[in-house]
Amino acid sequence: ARGGSGLSGQGDPLPSWNEGPTKAALLDFVERVTREGGPDFVPAEARIATFDNDGTLWTEQPLAVELAFVIDRVKALAPQHPEWRHQQPFQGVLEGDLKAVAASGERGLMQLLAATHSGVTTEAFDVTVKDWITTAKHPRFSRPYTDLVYQPMLELLALLRAHGFKTFIVSGGDVGFMRAWAERVYGIPPEQVIGSRAKLRYEVRDGAPALLLLPELDLMNDKAGKPVGIQQVIGRRPLAAFGNSDGDFEMLEWTTSGTGPRFGLFVHHTDAEREWAYDRNAHIGKLSRGLDEAPRRGWYLVDMKKDWKVIYPFEQ
Amino acid sequence: ARGGSGLSGQGDPLPSWNEGPTKAALLDFVERVTREGGPDFVPAEARIATFDNDGTLWTEQPLAVELAFVIDRVKALAPQHPEWRHQQPFQGVLEGDLKAVAASGERGLMQLLAATHSGVTTEAFDVTVKDWITTAKHPRFSRPYTDLVYQPMLELLALLRAHGFKTFIVSGGDVGFMRAWAERVYGIPPEQVIGSRAKLRYEVRDGAPALLLLPELDLMNDKAGKPVGIQQVIGRRPLAAFGNSDGDFEMLEWTTSGTGPRFGLFVHHTDAEREWAYDRNAHIGKLSRGLDEAPRRGWYLVDMKKDWKVIYPFEQ
Ligand SMILES: [Ca+2]
Ligand SMILES: [Ca+2]
Repeated sequence: ARGGSGLSGQGDPLPSWNEGPTKAALLDFVERVTREGGPDFVPAEARIATFDNDGTLWTEQPLAVELAFVIDRVKALAPQHPEWRHQQPFQGVLEGDLKAVAASGERGLMQLLAATHSGVTTEAFDVTVKDWITTAKHPRFSRPYTDLVYQPMLELLALLRAHGFKTFIVSGGDVGFMRAWAERVYGIPPEQVIGSRAKLRYEVRDGAPALLLLPELDLMNDKAGKPVGIQQVIGRRPLAAFGNSDGDFEMLEWTTSGTGPRFGLFVHHTDAEREWAYDRNAHIGKLSRGLDEAPRRGWYLVDMKKDWKVIYPFEQ
Repeated sequence: ARGGSGLSGQGDPLPSWNEGPTKAALLDFVERVTREGGPDFVPAEARIATFDNDGTLWTEQPLAVELAFVIDRVKALAPQHPEWRHQQPFQGVLEGDLKAVAASGERGLMQLLAATHSGVTTEAFDVTVKDWITTAKHPRFSRPYTDLVYQPMLELLALLRAHGFKTFIVSGGDVGFMRAWAERVYGIPPEQVIGSRAKLRYEVRDGAPALLLLPELDLMNDKAGKPVGIQQVIGRRPLAAFGNSDGDFEMLEWTTSGTGPRFGLFVHHTDAEREWAYDRNAHIGKLSRGLDEAPRRGWYLVDMKKDWKVIYPFEQ
């Protein structure tokens, strides 16, 4: 985490944010909950902020990063699975026929996740993800996916941490996939990453204990699953929650319905030039109910095009 | 957490521990993993220590504290359940016939847990536990249960935290039961308490969201379930693990089979006068395999009678 940047003086703690109501509200919220003796003061131990990952902290277009990982893993594992050449959704992945993959529906997605996220130990999976994330490149920017994090959100994470907040990721993505790089990229340690997860089995083989990833979902950390994952791992209601899609609706609802000062925000993807523009009709990261209800629930919307001076760190 | 007591100078960081190999090993371990540039140095973010609760951090005799809570709750709820007067295991609880309760077996225990730990929101359950724990008294010492924490273990928690460790509870007890008082009593925040847990359902009633505790187990955080709970919540292997029974065997095994410096320890209850003496034949907190295998696995055994100058803070 950055050193303790003040809210006033010592420069702007959110230099990549344009001035406007959203930036002002963020700074005001942090100031209010940390002002000792003030009416909205919250002790440091209760300063919990939760962040969705895909589309909130990094780019999720044209394909969720974890899906790119799944595709590469299916290709890498295919020689050991000749039957995949004639079996959907694997055949579609191998032939680049994403329509066939999509046609396999949720069941197909679960088959792909099981084939690429289970049958190995947690430690072996961690190594596989670390290897992949350091070599794979984003198709549009030809850079590592971890370069495509949002500079304004990195500044927000640093601002919150400098003011005593614990920052958590709360994502529908696989927890082991994110833990493999979240500490390096966001400064968020494994114990502050909450995601969907497979069931685990503890095994001792030849005297060596291991945790085996099973081909069965233990938690789907999306929509109403987000407050559940938050309660399981954190055990208290966040003060602030940040998302970008209707999958985050319940997380923002749960967070902002607590007593005292609360903050809810959606990143609205409005910048087709520098990033992507999508909301109600998106195939991934759909934001519709959230867009409708944000105003009356007091949630903020980041207008990416207007509110962010830069999108990615490499633009600076 | 206490201020940064040094390992040498500035007095003894473990004043309630008698000199001996166990105390020396604890101090040596902390010194080695925190000595920058030393061969066993571990960066602060990987300094994770996990503690069982019942019998490791506080007294679990003559009855696990949570079972005392269950009994009191069944009595408090009985007027709303006239059928319990003729239905085991409830009848046994109401009549003080613990043999009948024991005869109802694991199924009976699950019924008692469901009746006392579910059907309410997480926030209502938290209030119930907080009310109970401030008024209930231990039958032998006539003091609040939270007075019956082990002073030497409080000193160990403080020593570890003063040296950059994150301390976690990893207990078979219910996570919500422990979170209601663990921060006040041990300085361990809710997000560092791992326990058994019920399934949760997110609900919005009359516009107010809540998490409802369901009468179904989601994780049994005991035995091989402890490494699973650790992986789900922490996502990395602890450096040090502390327990008192065979229910902690797998946690110690998983912890100490990692590479580099590791520490495993069982509190062995050997003091029938000041506390209780029990191990192989105990009905609760049975320690048998652990006692057999500790020496060759390099795990330490606290001999409570010999190693601890005082048991409870109030003895000082
Ligand atoms: Ca998202
Ligand atoms: Ca125990």
